[in-house]
Amino acid sequence: MHNRLKDGSLKLYELDKELVPIDAIRVRREFIGKETGAKLENIGIFSIDVERVTKRNCENMIGTVQVPVGVAGPIRINGGHAQGDYWLPLATTEGALVASVNRGCSAITKAGGADVRILHDGMTRAPVFATESVTHAVRVCEWVTVHHEELKAAAESTTSHGKLSGIVTFVAGTSVYVRLEFDTKDAMGMNMVTIASAKVADLIAQGTGARLIALSGNMCADKKPAAINGIMGRGRSVVAGVALSHELIEKVFKTDAASLHEVNYRKNLVGSARAGAMGFNAHAANVVAALFIACGQDAAHAIDGSTCITTVDLTKTGVYVAITLPSLPVGTVGGGTSVETQQECLNILGVAGSGTPPGTNAKELGEIIGCAVLAGELSLIGALAAQHLARAHQQLGRG
Amino acid sequence: MHNRLKDGSLKLYELDKELVPIDAIRVRREFIGKETGAKLENIGIFSIDVERVTKRNCENMIGTVQVPVGVAGPIRINGGHAQGDYWLPLATTEGALVASVNRGCSAITKAGGADVRILHDGMTRAPVFATESVTHAVRVCEWVTVHHEELKAAAESTTSHGKLSGIVTFVAGTSVYVRLEFDTKDAMGMNMVTIASAKVADLIAQGTGARLIALSGNMCADKKPAAINGIMGRGRSVVAGVALSHELIEKVFKTDAASLHEVNYRKNLVGSARAGAMGFNAHAANVVAALFIACGQDAAHAIDGSTCITTVDLTKTGVYVAITLPSLPVGTVGGGTSVETQQECLNILGVAGSGTPPGTNAKELGEIIGCAVLAGELSLIGALAAQHLARAHQQLGRG
Amino acid sequence: MHNRLKDGSLKLYELDKELVPIDAIRVRREFIGKETGAKLENIGIFSIDVERVTKRNCENMIGTVQVPVGVAGPIRINGGHAQGDYWLPLATTEGALVASVNRGCSAITKAGGADVRILHDGMTRAPVFATESVTHAVRVCEWVTVHHEELKAAAESTTSHGKLSGIVTFVAGTSVYVRLEFDTKDAMGMNMVTIASAKVADLIAQGTGARLIALSGNMCADKKPAAINGIMGRGRSVVAGVALSHELIEKVFKTDAASLHEVNYRKNLVGSARAGAMGFNAHAANVVAALFIACGQDAAHAIDGSTCITTVDLTKTGVYVAITLPSLPVGTVGGGTSVETQQECLNILGVAGSGTPPGTNAKELGEIIGCAVLAGELSLIGALAAQHLARAHQQLGRG
Amino acid sequence: MHNRLKDGSLKLYELDKELVPIDAIRVRREFIGKETGAKLENIGIFSIDVERVTKRNCENMIGTVQVPVGVAGPIRINGGHAQGDYWLPLATTEGALVASVNRGCSAITKAGGADVRILHDGMTRAPVFATESVTHAVRVCEWVTVHHEELKAAAESTTSHGKLSGIVTFVAGTSVYVRLEFDTKDAMGMNMVTIASAKVADLIAQGTGARLIALSGNMCADKKPAAINGIMGRGRSVVAGVALSHELIEKVFKTDAASLHEVNYRKNLVGSARAGAMGFNAHAANVVAALFIACGQDAAHAIDGSTCITTVDLTKTGVYVAITLPSLPVGTVGGGTSVETQQECLNILGVAGSGTPPGTNAKELGEIIGCAVLAGELSLIGALAAQHLARAHQQLGRG
Repeated sequence: MHNRLKDGSLKLYELDKELVPIDAIRVRREFIGKETGAKLENIGIFSIDVERVTKRNCENMIGTVQVPVGVAGPIRINGGHAQGDYWLPLATTEGALVASVNRGCSAITKAGGADVRILHDGMTRAPVFATESVTHAVRVCEWVTVHHEELKAAAESTTSHGKLSGIVTFVAGTSVYVRLEFDTKDAMGMNMVTIASAKVADLIAQGTGARLIALSGNMCADKKPAAINGIMGRGRSVVAGVALSHELIEKVFKTDAASLHEVNYRKNLVGSARAGAMGFNAHAANVVAALFIACGQDAAHAIDGSTCITTVDLTKTGVYVAITLPSLPVGTVGGGTSVETQQECLNILGVAGSGTPPGTNAKELGEIIGCAVLAGELSLIGALAAQHLARAHQQLGRG
Repeated sequence: MHNRLKDGSLKLYELDKELVPIDAIRVRREFIGKETGAKLENIGIFSIDVERVTKRNCENMIGTVQVPVGVAGPIRINGGHAQGDYWLPLATTEGALVASVNRGCSAITKAGGADVRILHDGMTRAPVFATESVTHAVRVCEWVTVHHEELKAAAESTTSHGKLSGIVTFVAGTSVYVRLEFDTKDAMGMNMVTIASAKVADLIAQGTGARLIALSGNMCADKKPAAINGIMGRGRSVVAGVALSHELIEKVFKTDAASLHEVNYRKNLVGSARAGAMGFNAHAANVVAALFIACGQDAAHAIDGSTCITTVDLTKTGVYVAITLPSLPVGTVGGGTSVETQQECLNILGVAGSGTPPGTNAKELGEIIGCAVLAGELSLIGALAAQHLARAHQQLGRG
Repeated sequence: MHNRLKDGSLKLYELDKELVPIDAIRVRREFIGKETGAKLENIGIFSIDVERVTKRNCENMIGTVQVPVGVAGPIRINGGHAQGDYWLPLATTEGALVASVNRGCSAITKAGGADVRILHDGMTRAPVFATESVTHAVRVCEWVTVHHEELKAAAESTTSHGKLSGIVTFVAGTSVYVRLEFDTKDAMGMNMVTIASAKVADLIAQGTGARLIALSGNMCADKKPAAINGIMGRGRSVVAGVALSHELIEKVFKTDAASLHEVNYRKNLVGSARAGAMGFNAHAANVVAALFIACGQDAAHAIDGSTCITTVDLTKTGVYVAITLPSLPVGTVGGGTSVETQQECLNILGVAGSGTPPGTNAKELGEIIGCAVLAGELSLIGALAAQHLARAHQQLGRG
Repeated sequence: MHNRLKDGSLKLYELDKELVPIDAIRVRREFIGKETGAKLENIGIFSIDVERVTKRNCENMIGTVQVPVGVAGPIRINGGHAQGDYWLPLATTEGALVASVNRGCSAITKAGGADVRILHDGMTRAPVFATESVTHAVRVCEWVTVHHEELKAAAESTTSHGKLSGIVTFVAGTSVYVRLEFDTKDAMGMNMVTIASAKVADLIAQGTGARLIALSGNMCADKKPAAINGIMGRGRSVVAGVALSHELIEKVFKTDAASLHEVNYRKNLVGSARAGAMGFNAHAANVVAALFIACGQDAAHAIDGSTCITTVDLTKTGVYVAITLPSLPVGTVGGGTSVETQQECLNILGVAGSGTPPGTNAKELGEIIGCAVLAGELSLIGALAAQHLARAHQQLGRG
C-alpha cells in the first residue's frame, strides 16, 4: 500500500474506501511519517470516534493534536439565557491565560455576577451577482424586494430548522450582493445557510438574468474582520457587563477606578483608534479562541467572533466594565460539537446539543462566552492598572 | 479534597502544590465533572507530557481536547527558506477544508510549485505612556530618538536571542506609543518582546517623566485586526504566488482564467471593500487557524495572521494568483510548539525547534503557511469559478 | 469703534446689533486688517446679499473669497431623475481638474450617456445615551422599538417636510445609539433632522431613564469617513455607470480595455486595500468638493460624500465603468444654496430650489454629481492607462 | 461665436486662444447662460486676477462663487512655529460654525493658549508597478533599496526646493508600491512630488523590468481616508492641546470636567469605534474645510486633513483636551494660495508666501489649523456637555 501511495496510484483520500477509518488513519500516518521522517507517536493516540469524524469533520485524517484544557471559574452569570455559576473550559497553550480568566471570574462572581444579553441573532450568507449595468443592478434589488416571500419559502424549503429572517441588498457598480440572514436555532449554521442561499441565489439569477458569481460575496462576511458584521450583527450579538465597587477594585485588583478607566481609555480606545484597528479591547481573541477550540466551534470564526469593544465607565460606586461582541458565530449542534472531547466541554457548560426551545442552548453559549471575554478583559486591564499604580507610587516615593 | 475544593478552602490551582500534575489534573477533572454533572471521559485521555504543559502552557488543567488532524499535499514550494515538497497537517473540525486545501496543493504542485518570500520579519510591542501635554508628548518622542542606542542595549540585555530592530513613536494627544520591533529568531517571541519592552518602558518613564500606562498600548497590535500590522508588518510578512496555465486551469479547476479573475474581483476585492472588511480573501483564516492549532502556534494569532489580500492577475499564459500575509506571527520554539502532538506536526514540516542559523525554521514555517493559504484560496476560488461557469453554460442552454 | 473692539468692550459679533450688515462687515474687516497688517481689498468685493448670509450662513463676516468656477460638459445623463445634457460648474483652484472632468464628460456623452440611479435616500442623526448597565441598554432598545410610532409622530411634529423613515438602535456596552433616518425631500436636511432628533431623544430619555449625552453620537456619521454610512447609506446613495466600446476607448483615451481594467485593479482596488483606505477610487473627492463648493453644499460633507468605489468590468464589447457613492449628502434648498453665486450654479444644472414633487431636485443633483464623479474617474484612469500603454510600447521598442 | 460654440466647431476651452481671459470668461458664461437658461449675474462679478487663475487654477472659467468669510479669534497659540494671537478666517455657509469656533478660541485664549507641534512633515506619492511574480516583486523592492541614493538624486534633479526624505516599498501579490516622501518646504507639494516621482518611477521600471501602472497607486494616499496616512503621516502631522481648569470649564462652558470627558468618551471614541469610523472627533472637518477654502488650499484635501482623534483627559486641575491630525496637507505657496482673496486670508494669518527659512510658513499654517480644530472640538463638546448637564439637572428636578 505504501508503494501505491508513493507512486501515486493510490491517493491518500482513497484509503477511506479500502480500509475502515481507524486503519486508514494509521496507514496514512505511517506513510506521512515515512515520507517526512517524522516520528508520529502521539498524534496517533486518541479516543474520539473516528467513524463520524472522518465523514463529517476531517478528510485525510492521520490522528489528533491534544490541546490542553484548563478550567476557570466559577463565574456567576445573570443572563437572558445563561443563569447561575459556570466553569469555563479553555483549550490553550498560552501560559497564564487560564489563570488570568480565572481571576476575572472571581471578581465577577464576587461582584454578584455579570449581566449579559443577546442583542441580535442571525447567521448570514451574501451571494454576489454580476449584472450588465448599474440599472440592471438596481432592477435586481427591486426584484428581490418584490419576491421576498417567494425567496423566503424557497430558502426554508431546504432546511427543517432554519428561518430566513432578513434580506438586504447592496450594490457596488454592477455587482449585487444579497445578504440573507437566518435564524439557525442551535446550529452555528453556515452549512444550513449556504444550502438555503444556493436555492435563493438560483431563483434570483433565473428571475433577473444576473449571473451568480459566488455564493459568498464577502459581504456575509465570514471569517474576515468586517465592519458590516459589527453594524448589522452576525451570529449571536452579545453584550455583557459588570459593576465593580471601589472596595472590590481595591481588594481584587489592587488598583482604583480611575486607573482602570485610564488603561482602557489610552490602550483600548485611543490606542486602537491610532492603530487603525477593528478591535477595541485588550485580548478578547485569547478567550474566544480558547473557548472555541474547547467547545468544538470553528476556530477560524474567532476572527469575526473576537471583534470586541471594551468599555470602562466611571460610576459613583466604582466602575461599570462592559464588552460588546457584535458577531459571535456559535452553535451547540453540528460542526465539531459532537467530537467527544469537545462535547464534554459543552457538557461542562451544560449546553451540549439542542436546547428547549431550539436556539436557547446556542444563545446560552453565546452569553457564556460574552461573560468569559468580560472576565479576561477585566483581569488584564486590572493587572495593567495595578502595575501602573504601583509604578506611580514608586515614582512618587522616589521623586 | 473534593470537600475542600467545594467549600473553597482549597483552590483548584492549589492542587498543583499538593499533587503531582497527573493527579492534580485528575482530581480537578473529577471535581468539575461532579460539580457540573458532565461525564468527562475522553478529556482525560491524553499522552502529552503534562509536567511541562502545566507549568508553561495551561493552568488548572483538566485534560485535553483532541482536534482531528488531516494532511494535505504534497505541495511544492520554491521559497527563500522553504524548498521542496511538503505535507501540511491541518487541525480542524470543518468538513471539506482538508480536501479543499489538498486540491489547491495539487494544482500548485502540477504548476511547478509556489513562489514564496518573507518580506519583513519583526515582532512588536508598543507600550503606551501618559504625558502632561502635547509638548511633553513630543519631548518624549525626541528623548526616545536620542536614546535609541541606550534603549536597544537595555532591551537586548534581557534576552539571549532577540535583537531590537526598530523603534517608532506615535502620538495621540497626550498618549505616546513606542512601537518596539525585535528580531526574535525562531520564536514567535511575544514573551521575549514583552520582557524586553518592560525594561525599555521603565527607562523611558524614568527619563521623561511620562507615566507608563500599559506595556501593550494596542499599537503593537496583538490579536486584533489592525491596519498598522498590514502597513508596518508584524511577525513574518509573507507573499506567495503561482502561475497557472490555461491548460491547468481547465484541467484541474474546470474553469477558465477570466472566471477565476472575476470571482476574485467581485468577491474578494469589491465585496470586501463594500463590507468595510480588513481581509480581501476567500477563506485564509481557515487555513491559518488549522495550521496554527496543529503546529502549536497561539490560535488567537490567527486573527492578525489571516489578514490576507488575494489577487488573481490575468496573464498571457493564464493567471498568476497570489496571497499577501503582512502580519503572520509564528515560531518553531516556545509556546505550544513543544507539546508532543504539536511538535510532531512541526516535524512533518521539518521545522521543529531552532533553525540553523537561528530564525530560519520560523521563516520556513511562515513560507509554508503562506503557500498553504495560497492553496486554500486557489481551491475555493476555483470551485466558485467552476460553478459559475457551469451555471453560465446552463443558462445559455449549453449544459 | 475700533477702540472699543480693541479694548474688548465691543465684541466683533456685536457689530451686527449696532450696524447694518454691510457696514458691520466693513468695520470688522478694517479692524482685522489693522490688527493683522493684512491689506484686505478683494475680500471686501462681493455682490451677494449679506443681509441673509450674515443671518443664516456666516457669523462675524468680513467678506468673501472668490473661488474660480469652470464648466465641464456637456455630459449626457440617463438617470432616474436627471435626464439629458448637463454643464457642470466646478469651483476649484486645482489646475487641470476641470479639463480632466471635461474629457470624461466627452467620453460619456459619446458613449450615449451615463446610467445613474439613487439606491437609497435618507439623512440620519444618532443621539447617544448613557445607561446604567447592559441590561438597561437593552431595555432602552426595546422601549424604542415598542414606541416607534410615538417617536415618529414626535419627530414629524417638528418639521413640515421631513418624514422619519427608520430607527435602528446600537449598543456598545452601556452606550445606546439611536440612528434616526429621515426623508428630507430637497434639503440636505441636517438641521431639520437635528431638531427632530432632539424631540425624539428627549422622549427616549424620559421614557427610559437613559441620560442623553449628545444629539450626535458619531453613529450618524456626519463628516467623518465611516463604514456605517457605506453599509446603511446616508444622504443620497448613488450608483452611476457607462459602457465604453473598444473603439471609443481607443479613440478618446488612446488605450485599451485591459489597461483601463488593470489600472483600476492595481490602484483603486488592491492599492486602496493595502493602504487601509476607505475609498476605492482615483480622485472622487476632487469632483465632489468642486461641485459642492460651486453649488452651495456643505463643503465638509465632501468627506462622507466622496467615499467612492470605482469598478472597471471587462465586457465583450469593451468595459463598463461604474462608481458607487453610498453617502452623498446634498440638497437644493437651505444651507448655502441660496447664496446668489451658488444659486446660479444650481440654476446651470436646473435644480435650484424645491422640486416637483419635493425631493426630486435634490435627487437629480445627487445623480448629476454621481455622473460627474464617473467622468472624473474615467478621465484619470484613462490618462493613467494611456501613459502606461505608451510606456509599455516604448519599452518594447515600438515607441 | 455662440454659433460656433453651439455647433461644436469651437470648443469652450479654445476661447482662451482667441480672446483675452476676461473676455473668454464672459463669452463662456454667456454661452452657458443661454444654453441652460440660467441668469448668471453674480458669478461674473469678481476682482481676482484671471490672467493667472485661468492658466494655473481653473480651465473653462466662467466666473467665481463668493464664499462668505467670517473671523474667529483671537486664539492664542504656543507653537513650535506659530506664536501669538491669531484671527482665523473661515469660509463657510454653515450657520453657527464661525460662532462655535469663536467660543473655542475664547476658551483657549483665556486658558493661556494652545500648545501645538508638528510631529512629522512629508508629502508622498506612491507609484504602483506590475511585476511578473512575487519573487520579481521582492527583487524590485531590493533594487529600490540598493539604488536609494541614485533615486534620491534623480528625484531632486526635478525640483529646486523639494528633498526626498524617505522611500518605503510595499508588496501586494505582484503589485509593488513605492511610497516616496518629500520635504516640500512651503508648498503643499503634490505637483512637485508627482514630477519627481515620475522620474523615479521611470528609473525603477527601467532598472527592474517592472511595468509602471500608475504614478499614484493609492498608497500615497491622496484625498482618500486611509490608515496609512494616519500611521506614517502625510503632509504636516499636527498635535495640539490645551489645559482647562475647573473654573474655566464652569465659566466658559457651564459644565464640568466629568461631562466633557463623558461626551468625548461615548461620542468621539466609543461611537466612532462602533460606527467603523476613521475619524474620532466631533466636527474637525468643518474647521479644516472652512480654513482650506479661505486660505486657497485644495478643498479635496479636507478628506485626509480632517482625520482627527480628539481626546479629553481628566486631570487634577480640570481637563486636558487635545486633537491629533496625522495627515494635514497644506502649503502657503502654489495651488490656490495666490488667488487674491485667498492670499488675503493667508495674510490675516501672517503666513502668505515662502517662510524664512523655507517651510516655516507652511508649518505655521499647519499649527494654526491644528489649534483651530482644537477650538472647534472644545466648543462643540462643551456645548453638548452643557446641554447634557442641564438635562441631568432638569431630570433631577433641579432645573
